Amino acid sequence: MRDPLKALQWEGDALWILDQRQLPGKVKWIVARNAENVARAIETLAVRGAPAIGVAAAYGVALAALRANVTQESLRKTISRLAKTRPTGFNLFYALGRMTEAVALTPVNLTSRIVKLAERIHRDDARSCLAMARHGLSVMQRGERILTYCHTGALATGGIGTALGAIKLGHERGKVTEVFACETRPIGQGARLTVWECAQAGVPVTLICDNMAAALMQSGRVTRVMVGADRIARNGDTSNKIGTLSVATLAKAHGVPFHVVAPTTTFDLSLKSGRDIPIEERNPVEVTRITPGFDKVRGFKVWNPSFDVTPARLITSHITDLGVLRPPFR
Amino acid sequence: MRDPLKALQWEGDALWILDQRQLPGKVKWIVARNAENVARAIETLAVRGAPAIGVAAAYGVALAALRANVTQESLRKTISRLAKTRPTGFNLFYALGRMTEAVALTPVNLTSRIVKLAERIHRDDARSCLAMARHGLSVMQRGERILTYCHTGALATGGIGTALGAIKLGHERGKVTEVFACETRPIGQGARLTVWECAQAGVPVTLICDNMAAALMQSGRVTRVMVGADRIARNGDTSNKIGTLSVATLAKAHGVPFHVVAPTTTFDLSLKSGRDIPIEERNPVEVTRITPGFDKVRGFKVWNPSFDVTPARLITSHITDLGVLRPPFR
Repeated sequence: MRDPLKALQWEGDALWILDQRQLPGKVKWIVARNAENVARAIETLAVRGAPAIGVAAAYGVALAALRANVTQESLRKTISRLAKTRPTGFNLFYALGRMTEAVALTPVNLTSRIVKLAERIHRDDARSCLAMARHGLSVMQRGERILTYCHTGALATGGIGTALGAIKLGHERGKVTEVFACETRPIGQGARLTVWECAQAGVPVTLICDNMAAALMQSGRVTRVMVGADRIARNGDTSNKIGTLSVATLAKAHGVPFHVVAPTTTFDLSLKSGRDIPIEERNPVEVTRITPGFDKVRGFKVWNPSFDVTPARLITSHITDLGVLRPPFR
Repeated sequence: MRDPLKALQWEGDALWILDQRQLPGKVKWIVARNAENVARAIETLAVRGAPAIGVAAAYGVALAALRANVTQESLRKTISRLAKTRPTGFNLFYALGRMTEAVALTPVNLTSRIVKLAERIHRDDARSCLAMARHGLSVMQRGERILTYCHTGALATGGIGTALGAIKLGHERGKVTEVFACETRPIGQGARLTVWECAQAGVPVTLICDNMAAALMQSGRVTRVMVGADRIARNGDTSNKIGTLSVATLAKAHGVPFHVVAPTTTFDLSLKSGRDIPIEERNPVEVTRITPGFDKVRGFKVWNPSFDVTPARLITSHITDLGVLRPPFR
């Protein structure tokens, strides 16, 4: 049986993608045999998490490179298609940027060059996760009760995870005693994935609705917040799953340290501040579908942004593969 | 056809209760013919909203008073049963307190005295709603875009509502241009009831998930927050639906005025501060049931408090039937 904690498995001619929409009820795999399969998996959230999206996209280009009639031009088209899947997370553009450079070199050995690069991007991300987890450990005391948001574990990356990777290592080393997982509406990555991954790893986890984080912090039960990131600007402003700004503001108000854990591949140094980060808005049905009978209600709108931007002043530190950093970033 | 915006309809020998759990998909009524039917309707959230619970409980005592073998002692037992339905909202205890006093007088005319008192508590609540709405209007400018939380409209009271009553009047008078309704997990009173009631009243309403309120305020699109209350202590600390503390903290951080709209029957002057307000915790299944397959996950906990306490310092003013007030309250 395949390891469900490795959400992306490269088979040389196909990418096996764990369908995260089915968790925790079902462990199902999508077998992507071409770039379009990968693009669809990203668009429909079968694979999500900024680092995992970057790795998946790299393999999407690799699948295109394996075609008999591959050319530099055809690969540029594939890269352009994959770049349109989701706008906010930067790791996608980082991975596709490296692919673009590799494609540009010469037509000689194009296929093997691209496939090797995809494998390398995957391997680098896994190593980067381990480095982040070690640096994350350095900010923890004993007895940490850490609140986390969305899902930032193995499924969201090419390795053990970003924030959740650090939290799991913290638990293993006896520093973390409890994790609070916010549900993360409307997709429920916290409820469905973080709870499941903590339970698999034997980490004590308590699920709360997103609106309960304030009362939990007020009660004094949260010692630290750790979240992931989708894109980080030069000044430290950080876009992450919608609701992160809420948790960061509440942490500040309650004197709880708030850390972003993200690989350097999430940093977009071309952006001066978070104002320049594009924010994806998704289908209103994602919000309304849990409510029976909503299809009969007329005369209302839904706002469904997928991400928000947390200003740097609310962030205690950025924990990266290169260490614990503070902006401005260069 | 019965008016679904009157959630409690007294028929002289039965209380018709709109089953709010079925909205917006279905308009269904529960016909309560005895106090136990009413108690169950309160416990199961078929009727909710602190003022509506108070009114319903009063009619529950009235139904008991209509029984052939009614005595002062039997009514005291009924009152004691109804007092155990939900712990946080104060209007329940206010209504039952008035009932206890009325029961204590003499056995003469017991039935008619109790039935009339229940009708009066209902009528007073409806009048109180109108007074609150007028006072609410006094704090509004033109062009208000008001964020509200949970549901505080007609269904939650014996009249037009508390916060949502004021908002609807504000729209009627041309002051409110837009309403933002927070979903209010896990029961979804905002998504199911506020959106539906605004749509019925022709008030432009946009639904957001609870975790989107921060980003919405950051975007500058919210001019004011108005919420209801379940219990208010002497120092102004206010318990309300879980998540209210989150919205209040975010409003403070973004410089948005935050008002509590509640009748004086919600004020518990026996309590010095919010620390003394009992907070109901409900079944974890309320949180997990939207996630398919959660029954297969083992090794996690859920925290599901129904209310939180917002400290007075985060509240711009309390808008009541007696005017716009600031603590301490006497």
